[in-house]
Amino acid sequence: MTIAQWSTREVQRKVHEYFQKADILLKDEEIQSIEVNDYGLGRLDEIGLQLFVYINTDRYCAKEWVLFPRQTCPEHLHPPVSENDSGKQETFRVKYGTVYLYVEGDPVEDPAALPPEKDQDHFTAFHEIILTAGDQYTIPPNTKHWFQAGETGAVTAEYSSTSTDDHDIFTHPDI
Amino acid sequence: MTIAQWSTREVQRKVHEYFQKADILLKDEEIQSIEVNDYGLGRLDEIGLQLFVYINTDRYCAKEWVLFPRQTCPEHLHPPVSENDSGKQETFRVKYGTVYLYVEGDPVEDPAALPPEKDQDHFTAFHEIILTAGDQYTIPPNTKHWFQAGETGAVTAEYSSTSTDDHDIFTHPDI
Repeated sequence: MTIAQWSTREVQRKVHEYFQKADILLKDEEIQSIEVNDYGLGRLDEIGLQLFVYINTDRYCAKEWVLFPRQTCPEHLHPPVSENDSGKQETFRVKYGTVYLYVEGDPVEDPAALPPEKDQDHFTAFHEIILTAGDQYTIPPNTKHWFQAGETGAVTAEYSSTSTDDHDIFTHPDI
Repeated sequence: MTIAQWSTREVQRKVHEYFQKADILLKDEEIQSIEVNDYGLGRLDEIGLQLFVYINTDRYCAKEWVLFPRQTCPEHLHPPVSENDSGKQETFRVKYGTVYLYVEGDPVEDPAALPPEKDQDHFTAFHEIILTAGDQYTIPPNTKHWFQAGETGAVTAEYSSTSTDDHDIFTHPDI
């Protein structure tokens, strides 16, 4: 049975194991509010993101997210949403594992991570940033990006302006 | 010799030891940019705050701070700074130790923490919130607050809107 067939509760427990690897302390009721996002594709093993939100106000947001080994968060951007919000700006700080991050810009010749084969056409950004524990990177608003964990999975803190997922624009037509 | 007499480098090393208790990973060059703030009083043992800033943009800020045992961050508030900034709003999430937080509101009868005796007149907020590892609390803008660590010291993540320390208003006339 693959992760894609697990119950949400089972995935949350697995995510919590990853948070523990990064010594992130969550209460029992918080573990149950870990969000599991398969982007509607039903292929969580390959494409998805699991996260716990500490706080999301109309001014700032802080969360921690987990990617399972070689799981990919699909390409998207955060567009301007209002006169006062030029789109979500976010800072990743990796706490465990390796994150292969791709953003718009000069493409790398031989990427260390590849999108799932059947989705290749829906990934266009290939400027590569490799982040390991203790590294951080800030993604500007309105900039296409996607990311994948290395073989051990990854745990990352994300500090950002307000999170309004409804506005995110994905390259993949099925998302 | 008390902490107040230590060099900045010595204090930074001590702060790093606390960060390690909370499994917070900092690079060597980051340890050297830990900020040590005695609020100009020269009594760091009693009044001060040590912090590492991950990111501070014009939209959001994320840092981790350390209080030494029974060290107090003095009473202050974050006033409105512009039409688009109603004052800094901040969320504390404690990672190690106990934080005694006091904000404006119904005063507690018998506070678990007391300001340093000679500064007592400059502390007015006594609505008590006690936070231990895994607890979090959000302080609204323009609200007086101060906080003190318990006997073991404390490490806390602070997620907030933009940090503009210059605008902070302290109750203590010497700060």
